[in-house]
Amino acid sequence: MRKFINNPDNISQELIDGFVLTNAKDVKRISPHVCARIDAPIKDKVGIVIGGGAGHEPLFLEFIGKGMADASVHGQIFAAPSPNQIIQAIRAADSGSGVILLYNNYAGDVLNFDMAQDMAQDEDIRVETVLINDEISAFPVEKQEERRGTTADHVVIHIAGAAAEAGLDFDSLKTLITKAIFNSRSLGVSTSACTLPETGKATFSLEDGRMEFGMGIHGEAGVRQTDLKTADATAEALIDDIVKDLPFESGDEVIALINGYGATTRMEMFLVMRRMHSYLEEKGISIHATELGEFCTAQEMAGVSVTLTKLDDELKKYYNMPANSPGYKKF
Amino acid sequence: MRKFINNPDNISQELIDGFVLTNAKDVKRISPHVCARIDAPIKDKVGIVIGGGAGHEPLFLEFIGKGMADASVHGQIFAAPSPNQIIQAIRAADSGSGVILLYNNYAGDVLNFDMAQDMAQDEDIRVETVLINDEISAFPVEKQEERRGTTADHVVIHIAGAAAEAGLDFDSLKTLITKAIFNSRSLGVSTSACTLPETGKATFSLEDGRMEFGMGIHGEAGVRQTDLKTADATAEALIDDIVKDLPFESGDEVIALINGYGATTRMEMFLVMRRMHSYLEEKGISIHATELGEFCTAQEMAGVSVTLTKLDDELKKYYNMPANSPGYKKF
Repeated sequence: MRKFINNPDNISQELIDGFVLTNAKDVKRISPHVCARIDAPIKDKVGIVIGGGAGHEPLFLEFIGKGMADASVHGQIFAAPSPNQIIQAIRAADSGSGVILLYNNYAGDVLNFDMAQDMAQDEDIRVETVLINDEISAFPVEKQEERRGTTADHVVIHIAGAAAEAGLDFDSLKTLITKAIFNSRSLGVSTSACTLPETGKATFSLEDGRMEFGMGIHGEAGVRQTDLKTADATAEALIDDIVKDLPFESGDEVIALINGYGATTRMEMFLVMRRMHSYLEEKGISIHATELGEFCTAQEMAGVSVTLTKLDDELKKYYNMPANSPGYKKF
Repeated sequence: MRKFINNPDNISQELIDGFVLTNAKDVKRISPHVCARIDAPIKDKVGIVIGGGAGHEPLFLEFIGKGMADASVHGQIFAAPSPNQIIQAIRAADSGSGVILLYNNYAGDVLNFDMAQDMAQDEDIRVETVLINDEISAFPVEKQEERRGTTADHVVIHIAGAAAEAGLDFDSLKTLITKAIFNSRSLGVSTSACTLPETGKATFSLEDGRMEFGMGIHGEAGVRQTDLKTADATAEALIDDIVKDLPFESGDEVIALINGYGATTRMEMFLVMRRMHSYLEEKGISIHATELGEFCTAQEMAGVSVTLTKLDDELKKYYNMPANSPGYKKF
């Protein structure tokens, strides 16, 4: 083990302790597993609840704030929060205008968030769900609803949060978020595993000098291994698959995102971003904005992912609005 | 090798290419190794130039912008920029009000920045230097001027940049920056090495389950090894040494910073931050603000550092001002 932890059973609660202490002016603790932006719930605004397993920071924990989500709820490391925890987040986010649950498509999360949604409806809180399923490799495009959610998250959360903040009504907001997700496609590549903090065990093994495409953010197996490519060739390979998937076409305008999964340096991310720019330009795809950083991590897994989000005027308008959350700030 | 690179000889220039493409609205390229905020040089404002070896991103590259530095200059990975590169950054930052060079105290950097300072003076640009030397372990407090600069950087750069933006005159600004550095003390601990991207070689080796205090950001040897401690005990050990050094005393008010060197998760940083809060409180030291993240990395070295900066009214006033740089935003 090479990690700084205390009692392995308390990691999630303790990391949330640290998060709240770090951001005491901006967030509040609702319960051991639930945080909310300091001013939640906000009158006449549809609430947005995000969450899932811990261990992917800044996702989801740090994406609550202005132009982002209202409340976040986390289970243990890589494990879904319980329905009882989720309902606390829903209550914290609801000002009477209802709540949208926005999270990644994993079976455990869906089960527990659905139960919490039922509980909330019994309390006369209007709650609906939009699942994030941007990762293209695990299922073909015909089975998009089975795909996993990964690194489109913070862009989708920001578009949702900005639109909610701008006063969009419940149904229009749900339609907008659904469009933002449909327009977002991601693929990642990994060059080394992470270790689980509770056990010190690696989630998989990968030889030095090899890379695997489509590796999940909990160590789920990928779809193909190759020898390690250059930064340029990595960008091209990821973009080739992503562009075919929607498909993205000449004349499209996108947000182009590079996410680091953990141990990968910003140096490498900038190299991949460099080729992403010229390669998309060669395809006639225009970059409205770029995002680069660690947004959705898998502990200290090495690797990067690319997410493209196709914009229209409505998505662009909300994306361009400001965000002020601990994990994502935009002037 | 597990890194995404292209030609090892071009890493620094290519990563700066990617940085400029990522932040095209906010920064401009002056030359292959030099960037400046888009609106530099700024009339009637003292310019601030930062820089050093590349490979520590976001430091220094990404800390140019409003309330931060005016220009940054980078050599190859972990290698000082040349005097010819540095003079280009000085010219880009100077509006006629002079330029302060603000960088970490390493012999190669000092040599080359000093030569560039001489060149600038031949061009009638007023240039002075303030060295950052916050790392406490490599030299005793009596030899503070020989100490290395590490993770106090972005806080010092922000205080300097905000004060320059507020119109502080050259001499007062230099005095202020010197005070901010004197009041900042850092110590780090590492649990695994990084590899150099040009060679794929590890900078040192450290057994699993061990940690080393005082490891430098280029693999410089530390001062003591111990068995891996818990997050709580790590926070206490780092703070004990730092507090003794200035010394920080009951009644003092500080910025409390946790920096991740690369592979360490935000999860772990939040755990260390959690104990830092209670431990400083036990000592009667009050936390005005916290900073948590990867600010000064050593490629994918695993580990964290703690920096405390003691505040007075003047330092607090400038620290509280906004910053808008690619690597550090503060509303």
